[in-house]
Formats: sequence, C-alpha cells, structure tokens
Amino acid sequence: MRLVVIGGVAAGTKAVSRARRVAPDLEITLYQEEPEISISECGLPYFISGVVEGRDDLIARTPEDFAEKDVEVLTRHRVESINPENKRLVVKDLSAGKEFEDSYDRLLISTGARAVLPPVEGADLDGVFALRFLTDADAIMRYVREHSPGTVAIVGGGYIGLELAENLKEIGIEVAVVEAEGRVANAYGLEVSEKIAEHLEEKGVRVLTCDMVEEMVGDEEGKVRAVRFDGEELEAEMVIVAVGIEPAVEVAKEAGAEIGATGAIRVDKYLKTSLLDVWAAGDCAETTNLITGEPAWVPLGDTANQMGRVAGTNAAPGETFLEFPGVLGTGVFKAFDLTVAKTGLSEEEAMGAGFEVITVTVDSTDKAGYLPGPDPVFVKLIADAATGQLIGAEMVGGRADKYVDICATAIWGRLAYPDLVNLDLAYAPPFGPVLSPVIVAASALANKFERKTEGVRAVE
Amino acid sequence: MRLVVIGGVAAGTKAVSRARRVAPDLEITLYQEEPEISISECGLPYFISGVVEGRDDLIARTPEDFAEKDVEVLTRHRVESINPENKRLVVKDLSAGKEFEDSYDRLLISTGARAVLPPVEGADLDGVFALRFLTDADAIMRYVREHSPGTVAIVGGGYIGLELAENLKEIGIEVAVVEAEGRVANAYGLEVSEKIAEHLEEKGVRVLTCDMVEEMVGDEEGKVRAVRFDGEELEAEMVIVAVGIEPAVEVAKEAGAEIGATGAIRVDKYLKTSLLDVWAAGDCAETTNLITGEPAWVPLGDTANQMGRVAGTNAAPGETFLEFPGVLGTGVFKAFDLTVAKTGLSEEEAMGAGFEVITVTVDSTDKAGYLPGPDPVFVKLIADAATGQLIGAEMVGGRADKYVDICATAIWGRLAYPDLVNLDLAYAPPFGPVLSPVIVAASALANKFERKTEGVRAVE
Repeated sequence: MRLVVIGGVAAGTKAVSRARRVAPDLEITLYQEEPEISISECGLPYFISGVVEGRDDLIARTPEDFAEKDVEVLTRHRVESINPENKRLVVKDLSAGKEFEDSYDRLLISTGARAVLPPVEGADLDGVFALRFLTDADAIMRYVREHSPGTVAIVGGGYIGLELAENLKEIGIEVAVVEAEGRVANAYGLEVSEKIAEHLEEKGVRVLTCDMVEEMVGDEEGKVRAVRFDGEELEAEMVIVAVGIEPAVEVAKEAGAEIGATGAIRVDKYLKTSLLDVWAAGDCAETTNLITGEPAWVPLGDTANQMGRVAGTNAAPGETFLEFPGVLGTGVFKAFDLTVAKTGLSEEEAMGAGFEVITVTVDSTDKAGYLPGPDPVFVKLIADAATGQLIGAEMVGGRADKYVDICATAIWGRLAYPDLVNLDLAYAPPFGPVLSPVIVAASALANKFERKTEGVRAVE
Repeated sequence: MRLVVIGGVAAGTKAVSRARRVAPDLEITLYQEEPEISISECGLPYFISGVVEGRDDLIARTPEDFAEKDVEVLTRHRVESINPENKRLVVKDLSAGKEFEDSYDRLLISTGARAVLPPVEGADLDGVFALRFLTDADAIMRYVREHSPGTVAIVGGGYIGLELAENLKEIGIEVAVVEAEGRVANAYGLEVSEKIAEHLEEKGVRVLTCDMVEEMVGDEEGKVRAVRFDGEELEAEMVIVAVGIEPAVEVAKEAGAEIGATGAIRVDKYLKTSLLDVWAAGDCAETTNLITGEPAWVPLGDTANQMGRVAGTNAAPGETFLEFPGVLGTGVFKAFDLTVAKTGLSEEEAMGAGFEVITVTVDSTDKAGYLPGPDPVFVKLIADAATGQLIGAEMVGGRADKYVDICATAIWGRLAYPDLVNLDLAYAPPFGPVLSPVIVAASALANKFERKTEGVRAVE
C-alpha cells in the first residue's frame, strides 16, 4: 500500500507523521516543490527583521528526519498532473529538469496557498515582492542587503502586511501601509481597525487608504521607486504586496476534484475529496464554518496542522476514521505592542449570514488596576439575538490572545450569555482584574438580553 | 421594601450594585465589620511588598461611592444575630460600642471567610500573623517596619503562602515555607508541587515539610523567635500562618440557616438559603462542583463576585431570577516567575470522586521555539475514561493563566478529546507554538483514547 502526499508544509508533514504512526508498514512519498519542507511560514516576518536568527530555525523537520521514519521526501519536485483513473501522477524533478511517472494507492493533496499578485503594471519590477515562502523571505532580505531601501510600501493591511510593517520598521525602514479595502484589518469591526491604525501611526507607520492601487512605478534600471494609487505617487524603494493568498488547486482541479464555492478543494468531514482515495488538507482545502454551517476557507497554519492530523490518519489504511468538524476562523496577530485577535463572525459577517445580533464592547485591563503597568484591552462580543449564544468576538490590547481562546472555546461549546457571565475562569491580580474582560463583556451582554426579555422571564 | 446585606467585600458590594440596578426604589443597607469595604484581598501580598503602592488602591469603592447610589453603608458594624421569624437583626456599632435593632424584608449574607489559626501554643505571640483583611496587612507591615525581621516562616504552602513567600523575599526577608501536608500546593498533582518547590529553592526560598507544626516559640519579650515542628526549631523573627480559611457562618447558623457538608451556608441554585427571604453569596456560601455535582466550597474573589451578581439580582424584588450554575474550582497564582493554574479535578480528586481517568502530561512552550525567550510550560489533562470529557487540567509555566481558561471553558462546555484536539484556537508565533499546548496535550490524550478503542471505532 502506497501513500503519496503532495506538498509538505504544515498539513502535509503532519499528515505524513500521522500516517506513519497509524500504519507502520505503509509506503510513503512526499513531493515538495519548494527546496525545504516543514517551514513555519508564519515566522517569516520575524526572520526578515532578524528576530528569528537562523534560517534553519524556521524549519521544523528535514527530509532526513523523515527518512529516519522510512518516509521518502523529495523536494524541488512538482506534481504536474494526477490521473485518478489509474492512480498515476506525472512528477517533475525541478533540479534535474526531468519528468517521471509515479503511482499511488492513496493520495493526499496539501498543495497549500500562494500569494495573490494584483494585475497592475510594474508588479514584476525589481524590488516588488510578495511573502509566502522562505525563498520569498530570502529574496526580500537579499534586496534589503544590496539596495538598503529607506522606504517600503506594503500594499495590503491584513495581518501579514501589519506583521511586516512592524518587522521592516524594526530594521530601520520607513513603512507606509496602503490599503485598498477602506481600512486595515477589515476582517475586524471598525472599532478594531481604528485602534490598529492609531497604534501604527504612533509607531511611525503611515497608514494610507485608497480606492485602487494602479501601478508600481519603476526607475530607469527597472527598480521600483513608487506606488501610484488614486492618481498620486507614493515614493517607495521597495514594495511588498500582501493583498491576500489563494488556494493552490490547479492540479486537483484538472484531475477532476470538486472545487468548492470558496475556490478551495471540496472535502467531506473526513477530509476526503470527490476523487476515489484522494484526501486534501491545509490551505488548499475547504472546510466548514461551525457557526454558519457554510463552506469556509481559512488558510492558517494551526488549522492546516489539525487538518493534516485528520487527513493523514484517514488516508492511511486502518480502522480509525477521524472527523474534522470545521473552524471558527480564530486568529491573532501582533502589530508592534498591540495584540489583535478574533474568533467567529464579526458583526458585519454575522449580519451578512442572516443573524440578528446583540453586541457589546467593553474596555478593561489585563491585570488588576492596582498593580504596575496594566495594559488596556478592548473586547467586543457578538451574540445571536435568538439564542443568546456567542457567535463572535474581537479584542485588541493586553492578553487579547488569551481572551480570544476563551471565546473560541465558548463558541465551540455553544455557550450562551448566562454561561459566559458565570464562567469559572482563573483569577489572580497579576493576570487580570477580578472578573476577566470576557466575563465583564458577558455581563454587559447579559444586561442587554435581560432588558430585552424583562418581564417575560420565568419566575420560580 | 428593605434589603439588608451583611458583609461588604466582593459578593456583598457586587450584590448591592446589582440590587440597586434592578430595583431603583429598594431601600438598601450594608453592614460591614471591617473599617473598609470592597477590598481586594487578593492584592494584599502585593501591598505588603510595596508592589501595590497605595493602600487606597486596594479599595475599589467606598461608602461614599455607594451613598451616591442611595445605598447606606455602615462600616465597623457587626451583625450579632438574625431573627428570621420577625425579620429583625441585632447590630453592634463597634466604634460606639452600642447595639441596636434593625429589620429587613430581604436579607443577603455575605460574611466571607476568615483565616484558620492552628491551635498551637504561641499562636498569639507578637510577630505571628495571618493574612486575610487589609487590617492584617497593616499589622504585618507595621511589624516589619518596627522590628525589621530578617527571617520569616510561612506556615502553609497554599497559594497565599506562596504569594507571600515571593512578596516577603522581594523586600529582603529570608523566607522558609513550612508545609505540614506533605508538599506545597497540594491541591495540585505531585508533578506540579515538585516544579513549584524546585522554583522556590532556585529563588532562595527554603521549602520544608513536616508532620506537624507544634509550637511558635517566643523570646522573653513575647516576640516569636522560632517555629517548632517535628521536634526541631526553625528560627523565624516573624511567622505568617497561611494554613487555610474557613467560612464565617456563625450568625447564619445561629439563625437556623442550613449549613452544608462543606461547612458553608447551603443555598439553592438561586443562592437562596433555607431561611425565608434570606440569600447567601461569596466565601460564606456553598455551591456545586459542576463536574461531580457535589457540594463545593470555593472561596475565591471572582466566584464571590459572580455569586454576588446572582444573589443581588434575586434578592431584589423583580421578575428576574438568575441561576448560579456552580463552579469548577479554577484558580491561578504566581510564585516568583512561575505561573501555576488549575481547573476542575486533580487526578487524585477525580479518582476520589469515583472517576476512571486517563491523564496526559506534556511539556511545551509559550511561543514559537524560534523566537527569543520562549518559556517552558507543563500541561496535565485529566479526562473521564468513560466519556472522553475533560474533567481537570493543571499547568505550570509560561501563559499557564491562558491555558487554564481554555480548559475551564472546555470543561464548562463539556468538551471531549475529539473536540479539544480540533479546537480552533488562535495562533501566531509570538503567542505560542503552532498548536496550543492545550491542543498538543489533547492530541496525546486522543492517542491514548484511540489506542484504547482501536478496532472498535465505527467505520463509515
């Protein structure tokens, strides 16, 4: 029995480890287009600034590590096509420049996602980059070393753009963030976007919004020197495009795998695709939003890892079939001293999904007010007005990474406001005010619900 | 309609605020024996070391604040007895030394808890203290100022004892912790106790265990000079007894209120006592352990606050009746650089409650390993072998305060290992490894469960 895995970052390498664990005799080959496997792509912004010192530090495991587990890992190998009829693959060895055929009994597609490059003139100039792979980071760092750009324009104010803003500022480059979607971090509510923009400005990062980025403008040597948007030019000696990523599904699609509404590969709850004996996991695969029940595409490293565990177990022969229940879209990022986090639906997303919502916002702190240096934190909770259940939460400031995990777990457990307000969380003065900001916000939520239902509650 | 509240720390003051909110016309009087109300007792160790600078910082609200809400607060007034037949009280004004009578329509007892003093000789010597009230902290600080003790013995290695160890060491006093229950932090599993003891020793705190503390030994001036245990004397120029607290239930008990098995006042799910129109909340009241369904007494500030919210709402006239569902016993404390936290049942407690358990322990870190300075963290999960549900968790190290809240919320939501392993928590390198230590531990748990059920899982 032979398992082939296409793509070896988070989902692929986790799947391989799991498959080996549950099926010690399985023959396993992993093909990876990039020169390395098992890369922490989320660490790349911190590598560019030198906060991560060694390139190797970002590589969790090597082909040699897998060889010890009797897993064949072939890097610089791109799978060109899949024939699901006869379970054969065409593979190109990129180093040798040669194609060959291979076959599988079970196939796992974990081809990941790639950066979207906007179709504007000048996107191919020297000094214009996207950041997705370790090789992209290498190229950015080489350009910084060779040309010492004094200014950078980051096109796109999502979390990668904002992490880059911090890390490029860190190495002394003046940073402007250009956002064409009206505001930075627009997956969040307006309150959060504004707090982030304010913090960026305090840290000396310019935040610019525009209707459309029109062109990257080059100099006579073919190097970028400006970004043009809304008819104006912003000087920039380097440009990083961080407008988003898209699932890499071409090979799967050409093989006839069903592609979902999100553009990613459709899978069932066992992460099986529409093709016989073919699974998919990670950034190339679609999953389910647990709140709306709708298809969701959430390309994040932790989710990819979790999907890899499930897909790797199921693709290996054996009695164990795991389910991957879906996602909430939980995320966190750091932009300078600000922690920003979200789980579930934003108010806008909830309304778009047809929910009537009740929302609250509170300002609290991340330790008892009488201890030195409490950081402020802003928490917004979004509840389903019909059930009182929490369906979304956003937070900015001290320990936001903690509060978001509490809320994510609460949404997962389908907790409603009467539970949230009484939730037994841990308190000691160094770790928060007497009631967690989540509970303070839940109390405000309960007050709103109780007002709404006043006089109609059951009396014992 | 007149509400009288006895005791004004966490539960009492919160209850009063809520009662005022839901019943604007209610007549409210709060009696408090101590000179202040609304004190953060949990902040007292940090006040002793000067980390909390101002005494007033520990007082969240004053009688004047409540007067503005038309609530009468009388401090240095002790309620001596309750007559539930005619709804009258005998109150002693401690300043004036006079008794008077008062009456109520609704009564809320939030008399809190007091420190237990062991019945050993010398417990009344100068320099022997317990720490419960702000006035206790005042006395300790006065003794430190006047006598500059070079050594202190802290009798009791629970969280108050360990917080005091840190804060007294902080002001230059040599600290020994003497624990008669075999090990420090014995509400935790052995692994955790050992990690704490090791850290204390690293920080220069002596950790001594003994069978029994026999005597506080005084000098000719009546000042403590040593603690005697197991026949040996440990020199100590100051002693702090932190062996535990007990609920202050005398007035309630004499009035005929039912006392629960835990020794605290028995209440129903609305926090009503067995007496007509009498509620109880906070450290004097019993609640339910949500995992075992058994009576529980968990005297913690956050729980008291949450109980106060429920009791204050229910004791006020109106249509709203809230339920207090119970507790998990979630707690956290800091001992020097170590964060220690727990929710639910320890392995020993779970077995004592009749559970068959499956447990795992993992060592992880609190940020991506390639970033500077990740702190190690130890996580132990305790699951019910019959259902796979999480019933307890303990953690020591970086961000333990976060992981415990995730686990507490998961237990509240009755999540089992297949949920925990797929839980959608927030990831970014500055906030953790790609999978939260909770998920890493849950994966280990899932592996144990899957091995156990191998070959018997349903196959689709």
